[in-house]
Amino acid sequence: MGNPKPTLPTQVRLFEVGPRDGLQNERVHLSVSQKITLIEGLVNAGMRDIEVGSFVHPKWIPQMADTAAVLQALPKHPDVRYWTLVPNLRGLENALNAGAENIAIFVSSSETHNQKNINRSIDESLENLREVTDVANQEKLTIRGYVSTVFGCPYEGDVDFNRVLEITDALLQMGATQVSLGDTTGMGSPYQVRDGVTRALERFPTEKLALHLHDTRGLGLANALLALEAGMTTFDGSIGGMGGCPYAPGASGNLGSEDIVHMFQGLGVETGVDLARLLEVSHRLENDFGTTLNSRFYRYAEADLRSNNAR
Amino acid sequence: MGNPKPTLPTQVRLFEVGPRDGLQNERVHLSVSQKITLIEGLVNAGMRDIEVGSFVHPKWIPQMADTAAVLQALPKHPDVRYWTLVPNLRGLENALNAGAENIAIFVSSSETHNQKNINRSIDESLENLREVTDVANQEKLTIRGYVSTVFGCPYEGDVDFNRVLEITDALLQMGATQVSLGDTTGMGSPYQVRDGVTRALERFPTEKLALHLHDTRGLGLANALLALEAGMTTFDGSIGGMGGCPYAPGASGNLGSEDIVHMFQGLGVETGVDLARLLEVSHRLENDFGTTLNSRFYRYAEADLRSNNAR
Repeated sequence: MGNPKPTLPTQVRLFEVGPRDGLQNERVHLSVSQKITLIEGLVNAGMRDIEVGSFVHPKWIPQMADTAAVLQALPKHPDVRYWTLVPNLRGLENALNAGAENIAIFVSSSETHNQKNINRSIDESLENLREVTDVANQEKLTIRGYVSTVFGCPYEGDVDFNRVLEITDALLQMGATQVSLGDTTGMGSPYQVRDGVTRALERFPTEKLALHLHDTRGLGLANALLALEAGMTTFDGSIGGMGGCPYAPGASGNLGSEDIVHMFQGLGVETGVDLARLLEVSHRLENDFGTTLNSRFYRYAEADLRSNNAR
Repeated sequence: MGNPKPTLPTQVRLFEVGPRDGLQNERVHLSVSQKITLIEGLVNAGMRDIEVGSFVHPKWIPQMADTAAVLQALPKHPDVRYWTLVPNLRGLENALNAGAENIAIFVSSSETHNQKNINRSIDESLENLREVTDVANQEKLTIRGYVSTVFGCPYEGDVDFNRVLEITDALLQMGATQVSLGDTTGMGSPYQVRDGVTRALERFPTEKLALHLHDTRGLGLANALLALEAGMTTFDGSIGGMGGCPYAPGASGNLGSEDIVHMFQGLGVETGVDLARLLEVSHRLENDFGTTLNSRFYRYAEADLRSNNAR
C-alpha cells in the first residue's frame, strides 16, 4: 500500500497508577510497608509520577484507607511526584492534612457511568470539582484530571467525543495541569483512539493530555501505538496490569506498565523506565505480596524465568 | 503530529492453524471426533482455510498421529480447504494416502532454529522440500510454505530479512501458492513487522503472502495492525491462542483467532468470520475438551459471560 511512515515522539512520559487504580481492585490488601516497598521499587525503576492512593471514604474503597500513612511514610525525591485521588472537599481536606502536593480529580463523560460511579450528574460533578479545585489552587496543589469512558461506556455504549473535549476543557479551566482520557473498560478500537487523540491534540497541547488505556479486550497496545503516532506523549500504566473499575461490569485490567515500556522500547521511544527493574517490582508484587498480575509481558517474563530456572 | 491516515485493505482472509499448530502443543489430546467437532465449528464460524493436522512422525508429535483419520472423516465443503503439514516424502506419501489435497511445508530462516527443529541446514531442508514439492506438483496438490523465525530467533537473535525473502522466493519457485512468514516466538516489534511486510510486498504480490504472528510478548495485535496497514491481506490465527513451538524456549501462544477477528471488526475490515460463533467453538474447546486458552478476547468474553450469569 506504500503508506508513509508516521513521525513519532522520541520520548514519552509514563504515569504509574498501579498503587491506586490497580490495588484498589485487588482482593489482597497490602500493608503500608508493602505499599512503600512497591512505590519505592517503581521510583527505582524510573517512574516519576506515581498515584499512591486516594482519599475516597474507606467505606467505598477500604484498600485505600491507609493513604495518609503511605503518603507520610514515603521518602521524598526531588524529581518524583506522588499523587492522590480526591473525590470531594472532605477528601481534599484529608489530603491536605496528609501533606499531599499533587491531587487527581475525576468525572465521567457518560451520564449513566457518572451516576453509577459518583451518584451525581456530570454537571453536578463538575460543580463539586470547581469547589475542590478552588481550594486546591489556593493551597498551590498540582491538579490532574481524569475523564472516564471516553471511548465507550458499558451502560450507554457510544460516548459523544465532543462531550469528552468539553469536560477536558472544563477541568483544564479549573487549573488541572493535565487531563487523562480514560478508556475505562477498554472499549476503544485503534482508529477510534487515533481519531479521538487527534481531535484532542487539535484542541489542547500534548503536555496537557494523557491517555489511560485498559487492556480488557486485548487492544491496549495497539491503541497505545496509534495514540503515539497521533502525537500523545503521556501514557498511564499500571504495574502488572492491575486494576479495573469496580462499577463497570466486565472491566478488568489496566494496560500493564511492563507492556507499555516493552513496546515503546522496541519502537525506539524513550520512557525513562528500566524494564528489568520494573519486572523485579512486579515479581515481588505477585510472589511476595500475593497479587495476581495479567500484564502480558510480565506473564511472558515469568514463564521465561521459570523455563530458564528449570534448565 | 498530523500523520496521514493509511489506506487499509477492506477485507482480509484468515487461515486457521489451531487444530494443528495449536493442538500439537496442548497437553490434552483430542479424540478424532472432538477434532471433527472443533473443525466443523470453525467452518461454521466462517473459516475457509484450516490446518487440520500433520504427517510428522508420531514419535515427535503424538497429538497428530490421527491426522489421516481426521482428514478422512471431515465432511467436504466446496469452499473450504483442509491443510495438513508434511515434513518429508514419507509424510507426503501418508498425506496422499489419506486423500490430502492441500499440504503445508516448512523451513526456518535461522540456521540454528532449523537445525534444532529439523536437524538439517536450511539448504538441506530446501533440497528436501524440492523433492517433496516435485511429487506434490505432479499429484496436483496445493502447497503452502512456512518460513519460521522471520522477525527473530530465540537462539540467534536477529535474523537477516534478505534471507527470509530468498527462502520465500525459493518456496514460491517450488510451486507454493502462498508463503506464511512466521514470527515463531513473538519477537517482532510493530515497526520491524511493518518494515518486513513492506519489503516482502515490494517483491511478492499480497496473495502470495501470509503473516503468522505469535502473541508471546503481547505485541501480536499491534504487529497485525501495522502489517495490515502495510498491505498484508492474509493472517494466520489459532483458535483460543493455542500453540507455540516446542523447540523454542519461552515460546507460547499463537495470536488468537478471536483477537484478530475482534480487532479487524473494530477497524471495519471484513474477515468473513462470525465472532460469536467462533467464541462458541473456543468455549467448547476449553470447557468440554479441557484445553487452556489464552486468547485475550476469549478470556474477556468468558469473564463477561460469567459476570452476566452471576447477575
